[in-house]
Amino acid sequence: MGRIVRLHRLGGPEELRLETAEPDGLRAGEVLIRVQAIGLNNSEAQLRRGDYPMLKASLPTRIGRECTGIVEAAGEGVAMPRPGARVSTIPAFDVQRHGVYGEWCIVPAVATVPVPAGLPVIEAAAIWQQYLTAFGPLVEHGRVAAGETVLVTAGASSVGLGAIQMARLLGARVIATTRSPGKRETLLRAGAEQVVVTGEEDLAGRIGEITAGRGFDLALDPVAGPNLAALAEAAATEARIFLYGQLSADPAPFPLIPVLRKGLTLRGYTLWEITLNAARRERAIRFILEHVEAGRLRPVIDRVFRLDEIVEAHRYLESGRQAGKIVVRTDGWSE
Amino acid sequence: MGRIVRLHRLGGPEELRLETAEPDGLRAGEVLIRVQAIGLNNSEAQLRRGDYPMLKASLPTRIGRECTGIVEAAGEGVAMPRPGARVSTIPAFDVQRHGVYGEWCIVPAVATVPVPAGLPVIEAAAIWQQYLTAFGPLVEHGRVAAGETVLVTAGASSVGLGAIQMARLLGARVIATTRSPGKRETLLRAGAEQVVVTGEEDLAGRIGEITAGRGFDLALDPVAGPNLAALAEAAATEARIFLYGQLSADPAPFPLIPVLRKGLTLRGYTLWEITLNAARRERAIRFILEHVEAGRLRPVIDRVFRLDEIVEAHRYLESGRQAGKIVVRTDGWSE
Repeated sequence: MGRIVRLHRLGGPEELRLETAEPDGLRAGEVLIRVQAIGLNNSEAQLRRGDYPMLKASLPTRIGRECTGIVEAAGEGVAMPRPGARVSTIPAFDVQRHGVYGEWCIVPAVATVPVPAGLPVIEAAAIWQQYLTAFGPLVEHGRVAAGETVLVTAGASSVGLGAIQMARLLGARVIATTRSPGKRETLLRAGAEQVVVTGEEDLAGRIGEITAGRGFDLALDPVAGPNLAALAEAAATEARIFLYGQLSADPAPFPLIPVLRKGLTLRGYTLWEITLNAARRERAIRFILEHVEAGRLRPVIDRVFRLDEIVEAHRYLESGRQAGKIVVRTDGWSE
Repeated sequence: MGRIVRLHRLGGPEELRLETAEPDGLRAGEVLIRVQAIGLNNSEAQLRRGDYPMLKASLPTRIGRECTGIVEAAGEGVAMPRPGARVSTIPAFDVQRHGVYGEWCIVPAVATVPVPAGLPVIEAAAIWQQYLTAFGPLVEHGRVAAGETVLVTAGASSVGLGAIQMARLLGARVIATTRSPGKRETLLRAGAEQVVVTGEEDLAGRIGEITAGRGFDLALDPVAGPNLAALAEAAATEARIFLYGQLSADPAPFPLIPVLRKGLTLRGYTLWEITLNAARRERAIRFILEHVEAGRLRPVIDRVFRLDEIVEAHRYLESGRQAGKIVVRTDGWSE
């Protein structure tokens, strides 16, 4: 039925092998999707390298969680979606069997969401990971209120940009960080009121200035590492800091004194908390669809590759040059 | 009017000086109390040594936050309590002016609570710090539900014993830790279902056994330090860990991977969050008074010293031999 990407060995982007393969039989509850576009995520580069903290891949494995395409067939017990429907996948499955890089994939029906009418395929493949990830800290757990100050570190990542947009629509004031002065404009356009260029500027000092000494109320941070000390220093009393990744490989000392003094909350978080819990997942999907359809959430697409450029796409993913989402389209792609 | 304890220099217990002094004038909102009994707290030994993380004392200073006595005079604007009333103080003030070690103290009227009828003076001086501290993690922030498993480390401290009692009355199952096998009985009597002797037993392994691999739902921990890794390992998915002290002087590495994987919350906490916030303070006082009056919360008193033994009392406080509260009584003491 077409080509898929498989990983036979952990390592560099060149380990992503494009192979021709037929889907094996659909199991109950699954759907077969003819893929049109695939959203890339940093955690997929981690999985490929073998340093993804959530999962060790057993090889060979498929890879990828986020795609848009047309349902080709539905397994036993699947009422929705029906064949012919255009859907996106949400990350709520094991990539071993359900990885989506390729011209087809098999995923659980519960991990699909209809594509809103009029939404371009490229964008439909780029919304779920970022907004679902932002939904937990900002809405489900963090309950950001209008007027609060939200700090988004690594703001030019797709999750970062999605979080900036979502925090803004909740009425928050957003401070975003980036290591690249060249990405400042993208962050401001996404809705950040202030951008701090880390490496050039002192994070805690700048946040103090911006908030008149008060600090931020809530942070989303995928970096951790020694940066944690600066976050704790820049936090307001009883601020919540959501840690959702480990981009820094350096061990982080626990900043006990400011955490005690200010009653800070440090919360580890992965989007699995949302996508694997039916009630939370439904709330998140409803919220995101509503705001995507109204145009208040709109993914920033950095660059689109073709499926046969998947190795190059991963090289670019790891380059850190992008601001926003990298999408890969198949030959089945259409507007 | 009598003797008070003052600190002229940071250092050992012998720096606690008993001096004769008259109260200066009452300011608006303050009351003068003739002290009958004083509850000692570990944070006072830290303040005396100069390693209290929340406050550096400016010398000379008074010391102590928790006492019971009779109101002698009330300043301008104080409707309650009236002279003649028996009250306990709650920690909601700066000890510099308001420290309670001595035969008299001056505190803000809002930091006093009437003593329930029939409650012995010694117990009345021993309830507020421990139950107010436990109230935040267990009720106000942590909202412990019946059937949850609560871990109380340093369980034989006064806060530890208070937390065990409070978690039990909320319907939780309690696991307590102690370094001293000899304190096991005290912990079981307070309501712990299981006691883990740290140093002799592997904390994470034992909690795994006790909870059939599930882990604890909420922990109260005044230790931090390297122990944090064992706590993260022993935690259930989405568990909350409240850190309310730094008994360990060793730096703690931040246990990022289990915190991410399990979506753990690490929350710094001090009782000031409760006592300096009028709404929270009122909720806490109502809750604690109700359960003290009903006999469901009853402080464990380890030993009572006389005021002229204050140095010896602090030596004992730092010895780690006590299980429960150390109280100091003045000559004005009566049943």
